[in-house]
Amino acid sequence: MAVVTFLSDYGLDDDFVGVCHGVIARIAPQVRIIDVTHGIARHDVRSGALVLRRALPYMPAGVHLAVVDPEVGAQRRAVALRCADEERVLVGPDNGLLSLAAERFGGVAEAVDVGRSALRLEPVSASFHGRDVFAPVAAHLAAGTIALAAAGDPIDPAELVTLVLPHARATADGLVAHALQADRYGNVVLDAGHEDLAGSGLMLGRAAIVNGRRALYATTFADVPAGGLLLYEDGYRVLSLAVNRGSALAELGLALDDELLIAPAP
Amino acid sequence: MAVVTFLSDYGLDDDFVGVCHGVIARIAPQVRIIDVTHGIARHDVRSGALVLRRALPYMPAGVHLAVVDPEVGAQRRAVALRCADEERVLVGPDNGLLSLAAERFGGVAEAVDVGRSALRLEPVSASFHGRDVFAPVAAHLAAGTIALAAAGDPIDPAELVTLVLPHARATADGLVAHALQADRYGNVVLDAGHEDLAGSGLMLGRAAIVNGRRALYATTFADVPAGGLLLYEDGYRVLSLAVNRGSALAELGLALDDELLIAPAP
Amino acid sequence: MAVVTFLSDYGLDDDFVGVCHGVIARIAPQVRIIDVTHGIARHDVRSGALVLRRALPYMPAGVHLAVVDPEVGAQRRAVALRCADEERVLVGPDNGLLSLAAERFGGVAEAVDVGRSALRLEPVSASFHGRDVFAPVAAHLAAGTIALAAAGDPIDPAELVTLVLPHARATADGLVAHALQADRYGNVVLDAGHEDLAGSGLMLGRAAIVNGRRALYATTFADVPAGGLLLYEDGYRVLSLAVNRGSALAELGLALDDELLIAPAP
Repeated sequence: MAVVTFLSDYGLDDDFVGVCHGVIARIAPQVRIIDVTHGIARHDVRSGALVLRRALPYMPAGVHLAVVDPEVGAQRRAVALRCADEERVLVGPDNGLLSLAAERFGGVAEAVDVGRSALRLEPVSASFHGRDVFAPVAAHLAAGTIALAAAGDPIDPAELVTLVLPHARATADGLVAHALQADRYGNVVLDAGHEDLAGSGLMLGRAAIVNGRRALYATTFADVPAGGLLLYEDGYRVLSLAVNRGSALAELGLALDDELLIAPAP
Repeated sequence: MAVVTFLSDYGLDDDFVGVCHGVIARIAPQVRIIDVTHGIARHDVRSGALVLRRALPYMPAGVHLAVVDPEVGAQRRAVALRCADEERVLVGPDNGLLSLAAERFGGVAEAVDVGRSALRLEPVSASFHGRDVFAPVAAHLAAGTIALAAAGDPIDPAELVTLVLPHARATADGLVAHALQADRYGNVVLDAGHEDLAGSGLMLGRAAIVNGRRALYATTFADVPAGGLLLYEDGYRVLSLAVNRGSALAELGLALDDELLIAPAP
Repeated sequence: MAVVTFLSDYGLDDDFVGVCHGVIARIAPQVRIIDVTHGIARHDVRSGALVLRRALPYMPAGVHLAVVDPEVGAQRRAVALRCADEERVLVGPDNGLLSLAAERFGGVAEAVDVGRSALRLEPVSASFHGRDVFAPVAAHLAAGTIALAAAGDPIDPAELVTLVLPHARATADGLVAHALQADRYGNVVLDAGHEDLAGSGLMLGRAAIVNGRRALYATTFADVPAGGLLLYEDGYRVLSLAVNRGSALAELGLALDDELLIAPAP
């Protein structure tokens, strides 16, 4: 069964997600739709890109629709991309949202600009391209009634917008990592994994110093008392900071992209 | 594939929506369910009616279940309606919720009262008619196992409850419109479209005065700075007011149905 | 069509629910997934168990996945259970979450520990067993590609964790009931039904005294004015307390498990 997965910042309070489902179902009744999430913070392209990258490997290969689109109606391109690996197809705005997932699946093998695609719902509104541009393109591609090359105008994959992420680095004082993303509980995802701590002297089960605060480098929340700061590998194998029953974001006074120095406790 | 679409004010925090899905799946396993939204403000029949009217044209024709039902358990009727256009069937309380969508699809060709329908789940609770009355009726109708006439007692379509909406009107001072609906960002939907501004002298890209406040009559949010007031056609081709990164509802001190005077800036 | 139902406390803001859908769809593309709710309060095992018990009878019989799992990564067992009635299969943590539903369907006829199941996604994370353990086990069982006995190590059903709920009791002063659960409106579910009031002298439509406060023993919210306290049978045929357009939880100052004395008004 062909699949369209769908991620957005539309939320579920309004009918935007439902209407996109309807548009897809009208064009491609036999296609299954799987919602990744619609809870991306409004206009937060980077969080959308990070969530898309981590979630798609768990999704059936298919057409992956993603809409976090602060510049809708302005000049950004609308694109559909075929990845080198698994023939996965990504559909959405060309603002970096798709770039991390594309990289995860071997890079972009073929790209088309669908902003003028004949597959659009006419008349195209200025503000709801999820319904009028992206959902219909995704539906036709998933239904297999049209080839990617016929869905829009060819573009050079090298011209697509990409996101620049900070990079964790090992220093003499410890690992310098960055706050990449926070969830609603104030848990903070870093740009590092277990392996980046290899040379730091920090060991699982031992205390660490994170920006001057004592933390436990641990496996689960249950390893620290309520209020305790925890450095751990999250469900996606990425280092994260959390406060058991609290907010690491608030307690460490972090903003996104802030640097964090992580070292073993003396 | 037969389709039931589903709109309500149940929210997703509880199991109400899930249970209605279950009821439909038990009766009609082969029917697909598409959620329009369950985020209608609690008991806000008019918002539900407006969202249903604008969303259904994007949905496959089928059975359209809608439940915003402040008078459940009291005297209001439970109904199923066949529209003149596209054979669309609407199922829900007879409180006006279905009336705008019915009008959009050519009016009601046939109506039955399903409050005593043999299709109900017995015993019928006093407060959860979504599960006990509306979902089972919708499921049976979508499965095609019963004709509408057999699902309840015939009623005269002229007796159905309808909603009275305010009407925008052109005056010597400008267009008098009304605040019909607001979303969670404080964007305000008006009861007018581009065409209603035709004789007002206001032109796209030019400044307007809205209740004494300066606004730009524009295409997208990107056309005004943060904090700027914007008069624009929303994704459903209806005039709306917004403040870029703010709340038009709050900044203009609007309540629903309030009048707005819209005129070109001098 | 085989069905997996899914209840959790993951919420919909993140990709956790979507990723579990993806995992199931990859393993068992032909299986239908029905979301019961993902709005259980975080880590609230008892509310999850109560909602599961009341919702499952309305769901098609199948595999019922439930994840409210505060001790994930610690010592609690992961289990799959076959109920005596309707061959329903429950999958989730062994912390009592499944116990009320199991009891509702005739008790547990067969149980296996799936914590080391060969069906898991490797490598298993410390914190996301919904994705790595429970969803894959549920998917394989729903697809029918494996028998329950082959999905894990057999365990004695008598060793499963069960929840102890308070019990309403009739006294000389009236019915002593307990606050079992509250929803987001502050409506409070009690551990009693109409039948428990049989000997109390209280009659439908008459005034009652609840913890010293006057209430109406009524059928629907419409029976009391705004601000009025209401004792009623909820949509699941359980006695509940509500304040029309208010919060019974707040107005009565209740915490969960608090005792309530319910008697006829003099």
